[in-house]
Amino acid sequence: MDLGEFELIGRIVGKAESAGRFETGIGDDAAVIRTRGRIVTSVDSAVEGVHFDRQRPPAENARKAVAGAVSDLAAMGLGAGDTEILVALGAPPETPDRYLEGLADGVIEAAEEFGVELAGGDVVAAPVIFLSVTVIAHLDGEAPVVGRSGARPGDVVAVTGPVGGAAAGLKLVQGLEVPELSDLARDLLVECQVRPQPQLAAAPVLARAGATAMIDVSDGLVADLGHIAASSGVAIRLEAGEIPIVPGVREVATTAGADPLEFAVAGGEDYVLALTIPQERFEAADTALIEATGFELLAVGAVEAAAGGQAAARIVSEDGSQVVAPGGHDHFRGPAAGSR
Amino acid sequence: MDLGEFELIGRIVGKAESAGRFETGIGDDAAVIRTRGRIVTSVDSAVEGVHFDRQRPPAENARKAVAGAVSDLAAMGLGAGDTEILVALGAPPETPDRYLEGLADGVIEAAEEFGVELAGGDVVAAPVIFLSVTVIAHLDGEAPVVGRSGARPGDVVAVTGPVGGAAAGLKLVQGLEVPELSDLARDLLVECQVRPQPQLAAAPVLARAGATAMIDVSDGLVADLGHIAASSGVAIRLEAGEIPIVPGVREVATTAGADPLEFAVAGGEDYVLALTIPQERFEAADTALIEATGFELLAVGAVEAAAGGQAAARIVSEDGSQVVAPGGHDHFRGPAAGSR
Repeated sequence: MDLGEFELIGRIVGKAESAGRFETGIGDDAAVIRTRGRIVTSVDSAVEGVHFDRQRPPAENARKAVAGAVSDLAAMGLGAGDTEILVALGAPPETPDRYLEGLADGVIEAAEEFGVELAGGDVVAAPVIFLSVTVIAHLDGEAPVVGRSGARPGDVVAVTGPVGGAAAGLKLVQGLEVPELSDLARDLLVECQVRPQPQLAAAPVLARAGATAMIDVSDGLVADLGHIAASSGVAIRLEAGEIPIVPGVREVATTAGADPLEFAVAGGEDYVLALTIPQERFEAADTALIEATGFELLAVGAVEAAAGGQAAARIVSEDGSQVVAPGGHDHFRGPAAGSR
Repeated sequence: MDLGEFELIGRIVGKAESAGRFETGIGDDAAVIRTRGRIVTSVDSAVEGVHFDRQRPPAENARKAVAGAVSDLAAMGLGAGDTEILVALGAPPETPDRYLEGLADGVIEAAEEFGVELAGGDVVAAPVIFLSVTVIAHLDGEAPVVGRSGARPGDVVAVTGPVGGAAAGLKLVQGLEVPELSDLARDLLVECQVRPQPQLAAAPVLARAGATAMIDVSDGLVADLGHIAASSGVAIRLEAGEIPIVPGVREVATTAGADPLEFAVAGGEDYVLALTIPQERFEAADTALIEATGFELLAVGAVEAAAGGQAAARIVSEDGSQVVAPGGHDHFRGPAAGSR
């Protein structure tokens, strides 16, 4: 392969547009960027064989890495306005040029799709392909952000869309045959896995509408709401029957010999938002969300006082009995139910 | 191994001090940080087997990853004041806890050593250990930065220390026996490889003293000065006899069957600063550097007009003939002379 570090970064930058915040850009050792008082920053990695499949198109894989990173901004109640990304790429030296260019194209296309600017990059040799994507969003001094610690007993727990699709899609990408699935349902599930949609449009609407805590569902609904519960010092009760599940997940889970609810609440990588909001603000938030995105806000449970220090999320069935909550997708230890 | 993502990041953060800029810290999906008008940001990765050796202590390897990242700030003429880092860590799920804790300790110790704050992290499963470190430095609206494009014909080309040590040290770490080397010389060379010193004290002094272009020597002196030459549209002439070489490099190179000059100018990872500065400002810069760091500014060549568009760096010997310039350390394609 013939692409050195410098050339590859040069190609990425040559295609990126500047938003006028950059004093110096790539080509120097670091980017110099004018700010507006505060930044919101986070980093997220995607690794071949863990978070994406080398056999999928490189642009799709790069987009998924960027999507996961910008989703952290949505989790904080932000859209993508005035945001930079920095991309650290590792790849084996023998990686074909065409594949690397596909990754670069995917980063550029994702930056355009999500409305963020590429501010820097680093390309290194590595035994496997990985992308670490840092996001830096600029905020005015007073703009509100939504953390994980504001959930209060009595709040409604809600999600911005159905879950379980990414876990089911992974099984399909890995070759599971599910004859009773229509082509359309199959394609939709694969899309959930390979082309997640960070909720950048929904997030600021929900922040303004009064969300008290918010998170993007990357580890799995129960694990992620568990993070909110722990940060807020509350318990979160999810109604098993209310959890919205992507069509086709049941069929995939059954074929895989798993409980559909496991895919839904422990699969991870769904990138919908899970949030808590005071009951009296739920309806207005729902209306605002529909106006902004066309999608409903879906109530799935309630915030309760943490009895005896049990600040966690749990699922109860219709008769009130607790459903054994499966573990979430642990990004480090890998496979949870239906995921890797 | 028993450390989930959340716990490991929690441990890192539990040990880090806050500098008062943080509105929210780790535990949320992103950090919210107050700024002062401008940020300087960059990302740098270190991969096991490429940039560090798994057999070396984990804290040392983590420190090296952070050192490489903050060195990009030095390259821009900055110290480490008011700087955050975000660390994306990849590691095999079977990595022993003790090794992971060593990496976390290394990040914390490096943050303390370099005077930077840990603002975020992400831990993912990966087939090899890698650390991608993003730096975000805060600047006042008018503070100057030094890029790569300001070199002008007539400027002196200088370095802040001797080169070749990291390449020679790598050979020693890899097991090369060099009997004529004293233990002290051997240890010094290994230190150059495993414990590089980013020039955070020297950088702002040289920026104030009038450096017109600056870079940290990560790819190799010729390659890095080549970046300055290309960005500035000038030619850079290095005097072979003036290039300072770390003691012991000659012996290691000879034993390895290589030209010591190759180690010195193409080895990379030395992390000294290479810069250009107007001739009339050189002496004052030298004096200021000695006062601040105890080290001399070492003149190694001159900036010339780029004849026929040849904006590159070249080495000439004492009789004026051109020395064949070996290729630099390409971080992506891997091994150059004496490096990997």
